[in-house]
Formats: sequence, C-alpha cells, structure tokens
Amino acid sequence: MPKKVDHNMRREDLAKAAFRVIARNGLAAATLREVAREANCSAGSLVHYLKSKDKLLLEAAAYSTLVIRGRMLDIEDKYSGVEAIRRVLLAGLPLDENTAGHWKVWFGFWELSEQSPEVKKVLAERYAEALRRYGSLIRDAQEAGEVSADLNIPLLAASLSAFSDGIGVQALRGGMSPAKQKEAVNLWIDNMLRPKAKQASARSK
Amino acid sequence: MPKKVDHNMRREDLAKAAFRVIARNGLAAATLREVAREANCSAGSLVHYLKSKDKLLLEAAAYSTLVIRGRMLDIEDKYSGVEAIRRVLLAGLPLDENTAGHWKVWFGFWELSEQSPEVKKVLAERYAEALRRYGSLIRDAQEAGEVSADLNIPLLAASLSAFSDGIGVQALRGGMSPAKQKEAVNLWIDNMLRPKAKQASARSK
Repeated sequence: MPKKVDHNMRREDLAKAAFRVIARNGLAAATLREVAREANCSAGSLVHYLKSKDKLLLEAAAYSTLVIRGRMLDIEDKYSGVEAIRRVLLAGLPLDENTAGHWKVWFGFWELSEQSPEVKKVLAERYAEALRRYGSLIRDAQEAGEVSADLNIPLLAASLSAFSDGIGVQALRGGMSPAKQKEAVNLWIDNMLRPKAKQASARSK
Repeated sequence: MPKKVDHNMRREDLAKAAFRVIARNGLAAATLREVAREANCSAGSLVHYLKSKDKLLLEAAAYSTLVIRGRMLDIEDKYSGVEAIRRVLLAGLPLDENTAGHWKVWFGFWELSEQSPEVKKVLAERYAEALRRYGSLIRDAQEAGEVSADLNIPLLAASLSAFSDGIGVQALRGGMSPAKQKEAVNLWIDNMLRPKAKQASARSK
C-alpha cells in the first residue's frame, strides 16, 4: 500500500476516511494511523489536519450528518404526513450495515461529549436539529388532518428523539434485529400518533 | 491522604470505589489511580484485583446492578399492575444525580462492549434481565385486567427497553430534564399500554 504526502488533500476526503474507520469498528478502536492508511496519506500529514480524537470524530460526524440529513430531506420532498415521519425515522435507524456505521459515529458523541466541550456543543446542535425536524413533521401531519390536533408536539418530538436513540442502542448493543426495529417503529407511530385513517400508509409509493 | 496496602481489602469496597469514580465523571475519565485513591489503597494493590478498564467497569457494574435491581424488586413488592411498570421504569431513569451516576456506568458498557467480549456478555445478560422484567410486569398488568389482553408483550418489552435507554441518553447527553422524563414516561404508558381505568394511579400510595 503506497503512502504519499498529498498537500492538496481535501478535508472532505479525510472526513470520509475518518468516517469509514469509525463506522467499521467504533471510535474507541479508531486511530489516527488507521485513518491515515484509509486516506492513503502519511500519519504526519494527517495530524496536520486532525490533531486529536475529538477532531477525528467531529470531521467524521460532519460527513455523517450531511449524508443522513440528505436522506431525510429527500424523504421530506417525496412523502408527507405520517408516512414522512415513519420514513424519516426509519432512515435514521441502523437497519443495515451502512447506517449502523453512522450510529457508531453517533455513539462516539456520547463517549466524548463529557470530556470535550466542542463535541458537546455539536451534539447539542444535532439534537436541536432532530427536535425541530420531528416537531415540524408531526405538525405537518397535524395540519394535514392525519393525526389529532391536541397532540403535545414538543413532548412527542422529545419522545421520538429518545425512541430513536434507544432503538439505535438496542440494535447495536442489544442485538435488536432490523425486523424488530421496524415493528417497534410501527407500534410507536400507531400508538403515540394514532393516525386517523389508513390513507397514511396508502400514500406511500 | 494516607495510603495503605490492605490485604483484606474486600472486593465489594473496590467495586463501590470503582462505581463512585465512574459515576462522577464517566468511564473515559476514570483511572485505576483515581479508584485506588477513592478506595484508600495503593495503586499497586488495586491492580492486583482490577487488572484493566474492563474489570473496573465490570466490578462497578456488578455493584450498580445490585442497587438498581434491589430498588426495582422493592417496587415490585409494593406495587402491582401499571403502577408497578411506571415506578420500575422511573426507578431506572436518571431523575437525580445518584441514578445519573448509574447511567454513566451503563454508558461504559456501550463504550467497551465492542472491544471486550466479557463486557458484551454481561451487557447481554442485563438486557435479557430487563426484557424479562418488563415482559413479566406487562403480563401481570394484563392478568390484573388493567391493560388489553391483545398487547404484543415481547415487542412492548423491547420497546420499553429502547425507550428507557433513549431517555437515559437524552437525559445525560441531550439535557432532558427530570420533569420531561416523567412526562415522557406517562405519555408512553398512557399511549402504549392504554390502561383501562383510573384505578391504576389510584392504587399508588
């Protein structure tokens, strides 16, 4: 495996390399050396860009956020109401290896946020974004008349955020299967949002 | 601070010291040196018992499990039906500093389980215990006629486990307040279990 010092190395490539390494084996096992190998650059050159494990995580997470947010925005373009909620929620869950990798990056936030103010700050921003997204999706479903007008949206958005984190943990640490994750999502939506009619699922393509 | 080598040092004291250290600042910040100081013994003497961070976590976790399980068994003695579910769930959530400390130990499991087969094994045992407890509590509420007979108990138990983990994450990492945690628990129970009458809450003392 040839090593080269690439002075034009783009930050984006490094972010992707950091992401791939964390996504494989988690943050604890990720080393700058391994990221350098993944990015096909020298460790010295990498350290110029990523000075610490915090930075490694933050770069990987910035990339991960772009990918997951992109998937969610796509869904919001194509679907509405309860079906949009269901699909956005599923898009964020570790139903396959790829998204499980994103969750390993997310777990890294939980691991480092207690010691790194910068990681804590970015984590807070991501949680605020999730709450806004869930709140806005539930409000849309409400305005479309698909769910009751008297739902407690902030509490449901917070519950949804907790539910999603919990399913992520159960999947990666408790062995919850993709099928069970989907069942749990459907049960949550049916009981917590109580969609008014069957049209919600009929809307999906 | 006097240091002494105490050859009769009991494993339980070390477990408690390990617990207190992790409970304060999390596993990542916990060192054998700090645990030795907490246990008032020499680092060398401690290393004889706790050879690695895995062992440190496992001892702390064994103690934590005894405490939390004890609280839950007490509740199961005193309460029944939906009220027992509510109180057991709340007893496991980080509503105060003390239980937040137990969650920091729990987070340690998530951090180390990917790299340590022993940690992974104990984590799996604890999750299996939680599923059994939740399943049995829901079944009891069902047999008491407090909830519908057609609930999907294994799915609800898995959902409850995920919900609890998610609230723990939101509390410790997302800043969810104790009041909001309680609101989320009540919303979950009301919607997911749909207790049949008001007698559930009237049963509490």
